[in-house]
Amino acid sequence: MTSNQSDIGVGIIGCGYWGPNLIRNFNRHPRCRVERVADLQRARAEAVAREFHVPAANDDPASVIDDPRVRLVVIATPAATHFPLARRALLAGKHVLVMKPFTTSTAEAEELIALAERQGLVCAVDHTFVYTGAVQKMYDTLRDGSMGDLYYIDSVRINLGLFQNDVNVIWDLAPHDLSIIDYLLDGQDPLAVHCLGATHAGGTQENIAYLTVTYPGNVLAHVHVNWLAPAKVRRTIVGGSQRMIVYDDVEPSEKVRIYDRGVSIQQELTPGEVYQQFVSYRQGDMHVPQISGREALAVEVEHLVDCIQNGRTPRSDGRAGLRVVRILEEAQRQLTANRGLPMRGALTGGAAAPSVRGGALKGAA
Amino acid sequence: MTSNQSDIGVGIIGCGYWGPNLIRNFNRHPRCRVERVADLQRARAEAVAREFHVPAANDDPASVIDDPRVRLVVIATPAATHFPLARRALLAGKHVLVMKPFTTSTAEAEELIALAERQGLVCAVDHTFVYTGAVQKMYDTLRDGSMGDLYYIDSVRINLGLFQNDVNVIWDLAPHDLSIIDYLLDGQDPLAVHCLGATHAGGTQENIAYLTVTYPGNVLAHVHVNWLAPAKVRRTIVGGSQRMIVYDDVEPSEKVRIYDRGVSIQQELTPGEVYQQFVSYRQGDMHVPQISGREALAVEVEHLVDCIQNGRTPRSDGRAGLRVVRILEEAQRQLTANRGLPMRGALTGGAAAPSVRGGALKGAA
Amino acid sequence: MTSNQSDIGVGIIGCGYWGPNLIRNFNRHPRCRVERVADLQRARAEAVAREFHVPAANDDPASVIDDPRVRLVVIATPAATHFPLARRALLAGKHVLVMKPFTTSTAEAEELIALAERQGLVCAVDHTFVYTGAVQKMYDTLRDGSMGDLYYIDSVRINLGLFQNDVNVIWDLAPHDLSIIDYLLDGQDPLAVHCLGATHAGGTQENIAYLTVTYPGNVLAHVHVNWLAPAKVRRTIVGGSQRMIVYDDVEPSEKVRIYDRGVSIQQELTPGEVYQQFVSYRQGDMHVPQISGREALAVEVEHLVDCIQNGRTPRSDGRAGLRVVRILEEAQRQLTANRGLPMRGALTGGAAAPSVRGGALKGAA
Amino acid sequence: MTSNQSDIGVGIIGCGYWGPNLIRNFNRHPRCRVERVADLQRARAEAVAREFHVPAANDDPASVIDDPRVRLVVIATPAATHFPLARRALLAGKHVLVMKPFTTSTAEAEELIALAERQGLVCAVDHTFVYTGAVQKMYDTLRDGSMGDLYYIDSVRINLGLFQNDVNVIWDLAPHDLSIIDYLLDGQDPLAVHCLGATHAGGTQENIAYLTVTYPGNVLAHVHVNWLAPAKVRRTIVGGSQRMIVYDDVEPSEKVRIYDRGVSIQQELTPGEVYQQFVSYRQGDMHVPQISGREALAVEVEHLVDCIQNGRTPRSDGRAGLRVVRILEEAQRQLTANRGLPMRGALTGGAAAPSVRGGALKGAA
Repeated sequence: MTSNQSDIGVGIIGCGYWGPNLIRNFNRHPRCRVERVADLQRARAEAVAREFHVPAANDDPASVIDDPRVRLVVIATPAATHFPLARRALLAGKHVLVMKPFTTSTAEAEELIALAERQGLVCAVDHTFVYTGAVQKMYDTLRDGSMGDLYYIDSVRINLGLFQNDVNVIWDLAPHDLSIIDYLLDGQDPLAVHCLGATHAGGTQENIAYLTVTYPGNVLAHVHVNWLAPAKVRRTIVGGSQRMIVYDDVEPSEKVRIYDRGVSIQQELTPGEVYQQFVSYRQGDMHVPQISGREALAVEVEHLVDCIQNGRTPRSDGRAGLRVVRILEEAQRQLTANRGLPMRGALTGGAAAPSVRGGALKGAA
Repeated sequence: MTSNQSDIGVGIIGCGYWGPNLIRNFNRHPRCRVERVADLQRARAEAVAREFHVPAANDDPASVIDDPRVRLVVIATPAATHFPLARRALLAGKHVLVMKPFTTSTAEAEELIALAERQGLVCAVDHTFVYTGAVQKMYDTLRDGSMGDLYYIDSVRINLGLFQNDVNVIWDLAPHDLSIIDYLLDGQDPLAVHCLGATHAGGTQENIAYLTVTYPGNVLAHVHVNWLAPAKVRRTIVGGSQRMIVYDDVEPSEKVRIYDRGVSIQQELTPGEVYQQFVSYRQGDMHVPQISGREALAVEVEHLVDCIQNGRTPRSDGRAGLRVVRILEEAQRQLTANRGLPMRGALTGGAAAPSVRGGALKGAA
Repeated sequence: MTSNQSDIGVGIIGCGYWGPNLIRNFNRHPRCRVERVADLQRARAEAVAREFHVPAANDDPASVIDDPRVRLVVIATPAATHFPLARRALLAGKHVLVMKPFTTSTAEAEELIALAERQGLVCAVDHTFVYTGAVQKMYDTLRDGSMGDLYYIDSVRINLGLFQNDVNVIWDLAPHDLSIIDYLLDGQDPLAVHCLGATHAGGTQENIAYLTVTYPGNVLAHVHVNWLAPAKVRRTIVGGSQRMIVYDDVEPSEKVRIYDRGVSIQQELTPGEVYQQFVSYRQGDMHVPQISGREALAVEVEHLVDCIQNGRTPRSDGRAGLRVVRILEEAQRQLTANRGLPMRGALTGGAAAPSVRGGALKGAA
Repeated sequence: MTSNQSDIGVGIIGCGYWGPNLIRNFNRHPRCRVERVADLQRARAEAVAREFHVPAANDDPASVIDDPRVRLVVIATPAATHFPLARRALLAGKHVLVMKPFTTSTAEAEELIALAERQGLVCAVDHTFVYTGAVQKMYDTLRDGSMGDLYYIDSVRINLGLFQNDVNVIWDLAPHDLSIIDYLLDGQDPLAVHCLGATHAGGTQENIAYLTVTYPGNVLAHVHVNWLAPAKVRRTIVGGSQRMIVYDDVEPSEKVRIYDRGVSIQQELTPGEVYQQFVSYRQGDMHVPQISGREALAVEVEHLVDCIQNGRTPRSDGRAGLRVVRILEEAQRQLTANRGLPMRGALTGGAAAPSVRGGALKGAA
């Protein structure tokens, strides 16, 4: 950084679970200083400010946006408030970092992107996972050509999760998977989305969902998110023609496994010979690369400061946020449209008294 | 068994991978004896017969069916031949055991069921997994009432698999998952099916597929089958309101894990209070029951002999086979109908030049 | 706590790796407040004080001991300084909490114990692991009688560890294992110790060691500590006649596994019968109990405050520290005595030119 | 093989657990044929012969040795009978393959080696593990120079094992570990042995033991064998200065893990600087090589046939057997000498009433 670049005052709106992590990481950056925090629960804001040496705190988001020392507004509030707060901050000439999901609609996302461009400001989304050493290693492996053709990405993110009162499981968990997929695919636009979900345990929103997204080049992405699973699974498989990657985020020390395995088929069949014989397997070594264990949020903060100071576009900019929201919006449309309706592909052949047996099934028969 | 029950001569058609296991298990049963085997590759049939002390072998399936010492015909041939061979055997008055998938259509399955009933013969399907100690333990746990309400079954069966020349991945692998689900649900009829798949690596049939099946009572079943995965995963999660089960078939000694965990929500919201506070978690113990390590095929043979000798209905009878085939048939209809078509839920918002970026993605950009 | 019990001012000497954890946990306790810290690196002490809101900091340990607001002195300095600092603090009428190992000799440990008793002060050792939910669960399981007779405890604690400049691997790592064993055995005195070690990688102190400790009742404890292992293993097996426990501290969510397995032998042999037939195996279920995930140091602080305020003896008092030091001291004596000497049990039968082949072994032969 | 090499008739003495595997593998080799088997339980010999198509069987070991069609006698009987049977076979001019442990004393082993040399016959020991793909991969990695200096080998082989009536746990299990170590060290002669063990559960022989073996070049080998462990562990760590290997035989598909990790220390200390700063860590990648999954016994049979036909020395010859027996013999001498005696390193400092507390410990106090 050159000396004429001034330091960055940071203001944080929302002091929930993620707030202390944000403050800690911004304050550790040599060119940043958290100047002010706000939370609707004023006592919470004040306690956090005291613990983390933030000079000012109250319950008014506007005070953060309007504080002249604040150049970057971090919005860590419920999703529904992201748009109005980010819009106001951009209008006030402040850079913004918005937690995921970026917004609750593509229209909102597009308006923020346009506004930031007009204002010449950075508008970033906290897609934390794309700043992990693991995802960076996957990205580099995809880019070095050794994977061959990309076939599919399969991502599972399930655990016994806290039900949210305002969003369902796809808005809560799938942004992680979709932002990883979006980054790995270099921001490629998806072609189509399919989503199925279920609402159990007395919830009012879907707590299990299966999301399929297709991309050009016959690439299939599938995301399973679930708040009702007994054990935590966070596993993304990236299948290519030459190599395949398994990224297991629960694994403490071997998160990324690169398999030197693949399948290829020789198409021409000699008459009389069996097709199977033409499948060629490669069962090669497996490699666990050393990956950076640096805290993703620290990497993200450093990257964001660089973008603000040098006019660069963040890896997780508003457009990345928009692409993720577009998928979520269409998925939500399908979930809402299908609530209470039978799935297509109804089976009529075996209709004899299913309800009776069904009832027996779920009780203590 | 009473003394007036004669022993059972067994004939086996098809001496491929599974053939020796079938012979070995039938021959180990004190009331069975494999009398004859056949395989289109006559040398294969003769080698197997020699190694396993089977008196007669040739390349003619009819010789097995017509052998008067044979009372039970085991059909271990490619799926397309199941129906004609089983039909002929039933018409000849022989009991039949057919490998999975039972048939290639519901019409065939229904005809075989009707024929077996008319003839008073046993018609069974080799749904091997339902005879494992692990699945039996899951079944018993579901039946003892301790699971509470059943929410979902999520099954993943992926590995680097041999492409088949005649069937796609759902006909090859999903019968395992679907037969387990069918057994756990006591043969309940599914309501609807949804299936998405992809064909990669130069294959001519789908080698990745996601299959969703809904059942009465808001039960969602999901099956992921994949021949293009770098490592073997065979894991079924059964989610209930009170307890949840994870069945990991790759795990050598702890296949079934029963989690005493659940989620429940108290519906009434006190005004002004946060909804989340009403979610009640249970984070209890986990239990790994000792399960029988007896070979599933031995259990199945014993069960089948009992059914034949005592006129009982096999756990995996033709109707179980039919229920599985009905799901596969509808899934196949959807896969076939959608080949080359875009998925519903097309996204038009971000249509700027995806193909260029897509091309870049899969090469060594 | 009754109202006439005053709060406890805490002073901490040593602001290294563990210092911030100590400050954080004492400050979180409602009856404690860290009043002063010291570190030979004054800047370090001041930085820590600033970050964690400690009123006073400098580079003089005496200032902590002599501060009238300080009732409890926490000693988190290198092992060689534990004794003089703890002695001075006790003489000044302060309670002490000393990091592990308690002291560098039994003589020092005994003097501190005697001094604390004379002064009527609490003298505790930071045997952190005995305050974990996992070790507490093991303790309770041993005490409920369901384990049967205790046979052995086998503990492995290995990783790629930082060489210490002042202590070898047994003084660094084994106190964890020995304090766990000591707690599980209710402070029973060991009968004998055996220790073997090796010094590699250019170190000046042993970086691999195997420590065997025998206890009354034919109980064998074995500890493997190693700074030269490629992956982290922290696993303690407790073998009993009726049940066995595996405690795997690296496992994120299933640290304690209780196996309902055992072996028993019926002693009388019928003439002519094979002895093996009298071995009776039990291959039962395995149980993973839910254990408290509360931070061990928070539990320890709460327990220590209770001991100070109510005159109780801490679970990890000076006597527990002494028992661990006694084992380490004897192990060290053996290691020192045997440095450079051949192990007993020399083999002379195969003495042909071992050095030549040995040299070949370790090169690129 | 050249055409003038005649095929090898094989005779097998002992038809227990391992017998069928031996017959199967010898019969699968194109140049071998099992001609005769014997077992003291004649019915057992006959049943095995019938199942595996062996022409002759009875209860007389001499009949195998004396059968003129038998050129190789395989001795799969209890250890105490290895010497007399192998001696008789060698005297009769037959090659021998003896199960592990080779003999029960070095004197026996030396006599067999000398006899085989005089007779010009192959005398091999069934050290099966040295023929696995995993151990071969470890051997090759040690030989390619990339490991740097060898520091230690730590081997754990524990499970809930069947008590033997004639041998203790070291004679039963440790030959596996010791033969692996012997092979990895190219048959280097050990310098010294130390062994500690315990007898529990009413057994008459040690069922837990810790065995330490030192080798030239400061190489430390440690073996933990245990019949009283709740879960199976079979893990060997090989530590070198540049790389380290973990061989986990229980792992189904990733048995060998090669860690590109090491520790080195720069010896010279600058005055005033901290020693720790001179430790240099390498935390590199981890690599799981593809290893041959071929059955070890098939590899061993092929190797043995080659040795017999071409006059080569087997990888696991009598000398390898002798080196393993020499360690076991010294270990046994120490175990026997120390039975009932206290371990050296007695601790007298804490002698207050240990027996009382010890009694409390093991009951349901």
